[in-house]
Amino acid sequence: MKQVISLTTDFGLKDSFVGLMKGVIYGINPDVNIVDITHDISRHDIAEAALVISISYRFFPLNSVHVVVTDPGVGGSRRPIMVITKDHCFIGPDNGIFTYIYEEMPSGYQVIHLTATHHFLKMSGSTFHGRDIFAPVAAWFSRGLDSAKFGDEITDYVTIPTSKTIIREGGMVQGMVVSIDHFGNAITNIRKDTLEVLGTDIAGGKVKAVYQEKHIPIVAYYQGSSISERQLSAVINSFGLLELFLFKGNAAIEFGISVGDEVLITKV
Amino acid sequence: MKQVISLTTDFGLKDSFVGLMKGVIYGINPDVNIVDITHDISRHDIAEAALVISISYRFFPLNSVHVVVTDPGVGGSRRPIMVITKDHCFIGPDNGIFTYIYEEMPSGYQVIHLTATHHFLKMSGSTFHGRDIFAPVAAWFSRGLDSAKFGDEITDYVTIPTSKTIIREGGMVQGMVVSIDHFGNAITNIRKDTLEVLGTDIAGGKVKAVYQEKHIPIVAYYQGSSISERQLSAVINSFGLLELFLFKGNAAIEFGISVGDEVLITKV
Amino acid sequence: MKQVISLTTDFGLKDSFVGLMKGVIYGINPDVNIVDITHDISRHDIAEAALVISISYRFFPLNSVHVVVTDPGVGGSRRPIMVITKDHCFIGPDNGIFTYIYEEMPSGYQVIHLTATHHFLKMSGSTFHGRDIFAPVAAWFSRGLDSAKFGDEITDYVTIPTSKTIIREGGMVQGMVVSIDHFGNAITNIRKDTLEVLGTDIAGGKVKAVYQEKHIPIVAYYQGSSISERQLSAVINSFGLLELFLFKGNAAIEFGISVGDEVLITKV
Repeated sequence: MKQVISLTTDFGLKDSFVGLMKGVIYGINPDVNIVDITHDISRHDIAEAALVISISYRFFPLNSVHVVVTDPGVGGSRRPIMVITKDHCFIGPDNGIFTYIYEEMPSGYQVIHLTATHHFLKMSGSTFHGRDIFAPVAAWFSRGLDSAKFGDEITDYVTIPTSKTIIREGGMVQGMVVSIDHFGNAITNIRKDTLEVLGTDIAGGKVKAVYQEKHIPIVAYYQGSSISERQLSAVINSFGLLELFLFKGNAAIEFGISVGDEVLITKV
Repeated sequence: MKQVISLTTDFGLKDSFVGLMKGVIYGINPDVNIVDITHDISRHDIAEAALVISISYRFFPLNSVHVVVTDPGVGGSRRPIMVITKDHCFIGPDNGIFTYIYEEMPSGYQVIHLTATHHFLKMSGSTFHGRDIFAPVAAWFSRGLDSAKFGDEITDYVTIPTSKTIIREGGMVQGMVVSIDHFGNAITNIRKDTLEVLGTDIAGGKVKAVYQEKHIPIVAYYQGSSISERQLSAVINSFGLLELFLFKGNAAIEFGISVGDEVLITKV
Repeated sequence: MKQVISLTTDFGLKDSFVGLMKGVIYGINPDVNIVDITHDISRHDIAEAALVISISYRFFPLNSVHVVVTDPGVGGSRRPIMVITKDHCFIGPDNGIFTYIYEEMPSGYQVIHLTATHHFLKMSGSTFHGRDIFAPVAAWFSRGLDSAKFGDEITDYVTIPTSKTIIREGGMVQGMVVSIDHFGNAITNIRKDTLEVLGTDIAGGKVKAVYQEKHIPIVAYYQGSSISERQLSAVINSFGLLELFLFKGNAAIEFGISVGDEVLITKV
């Protein structure tokens, strides 16, 4: 079956960076499907890229290869790596960008330091490893080369701090806004399964979200709220995360919500 | 022949929404070509998406599948549908987004209410049917499944009002600006074939466009105008629609043109 | 081997322009890989498009077809052309957009005036040759049609002035900023091989860049600078060009660098 190589970067679409990665990939493996996850990661924001790939990879076919590049240290001492899990492969810089993958991979994983330079682009430079190292390695790997051909396993790979929810007394959950999407919806790190484990009855309307000391109803879907259209509301979104929204509006702009803001779940 | 699945949404490219739709599609049918028509439909603007797909689909190969998602009512009572025409298939929410398709399909069409949940993504939620319903249904349909496998036909599908030109006394045509493109060109709903039916001699220079009471020459192509470069002009564009432009300039910004503005065609 | 058709335009991604080109291509050749190089060339900026394709094409597989469209004269007297080189094919308007290709192609090239209208889209208009002429010709050519089938060779094709570095007394090199990338890095036209030919010892630290009368260290990679993080620095980038940057910052914004600004290389 034809494999997918996904791309997640902070390269933007103005320059030819992304196109050149694809040109290099197709030069090595023309029989692969390339998918852009996003190229609008905030410049140099490793934590944001780490979060995006962690919620995205699971929607891709088994054996997909995910290239993730937010790489301020390119060309320096930071290592290029490949993370092999049971069902997916991740390729990028060893700067913590795969921290969530390490945390949540139930069947374990292996991290390879990419040192086999004969699988890199010949005309490699020091400022664009997306094109010169990560793209060609992804393409060669998608052709079926064994991961051991790319370098040796390492165990001292880099991780970054990740935001976690805190369970307070009485089952109250303390989380935070981790991203704002295109619609101005504020995505939190509060997971549906955390609430379920705590026996928190979302569907029964027995809990509310709290943002800046205001109670926010949790509804089943955007339009379905019986509430006023101008009221900040919350929903468990399709990633299983609590999300603050304003129906047909931009919650982040209209209520001044920012990444890092605290959100609580509490019983009514 | 390898089929095309096209995507038209208001999802933007900042988030992973579009990439995840593609990941889901390739997981079901890796042998399909996916084409982005645009993901920059104005947020929640059903009429704009309806217009874009109506002028775009005809340039795609026969048997293409077009997924169109501008869907403020996602998760609620609005139905997911599939519209089958002789040569194309359209998939999206039943909120009027396919109104122009209904209006102009000469060989008729069939509308299916998508209810066969076993063709949806297993981990479906209530906020992202683009990924959970429309993408997988498009992928399964592109594999050759019969449309009847996805649900039953309905006839009470939703339509929205569409803008139409008005023919006044003496063959004068009254239309309006329906979109502004990347170059600041103002596209109207005045069609070349309407003018031809009326016997309006565009090529002969016997008619002019009128915008805000000013006469505007209709020329054969952008640079070909014998007129001043700073003069608002009109052309029949490659979609067969009258378009106001400023050569090498931005007509919309420099003349304050907005969607909804009236444009007339009148004899000189 | 499956061929690549690359696309470089000033069409943006808001409208359906790019999607329609792809729809047309797949209708003619469904077994081709399409790659976007960029669609964010500044509107009508032929020189910028010329530069982008000249640094990009070499990273694509042999026998790739590159469609390049920045075309203010569309529909008028400017000719549609195809440039055939030993390893690549370029298709676009004859307005100078392939000037760098002409200048640097060591094995020569052939320029064909595209006149075989039966290879154009049937419903051609005068405002969108990207869809109506360049996309279908690229698709037909990628299916193996001989270039002679598309029209006759011409030798009076158009060129535009290109920026070149000047070698001053004593090996000083005078160049200029030719583009600003997504990260605010300022790319110059000063090439690594020019410096090498002059015996300029970059690695040995015997030369510096000069921008607005300030000396700028040339370092091996972004983070590797031993310098302050807030200091404007230079690096030979992965395209072999001298680039001014600010580590984790936006050099163009913070130092007011613009395209056209002079940059010198001088011995310390």
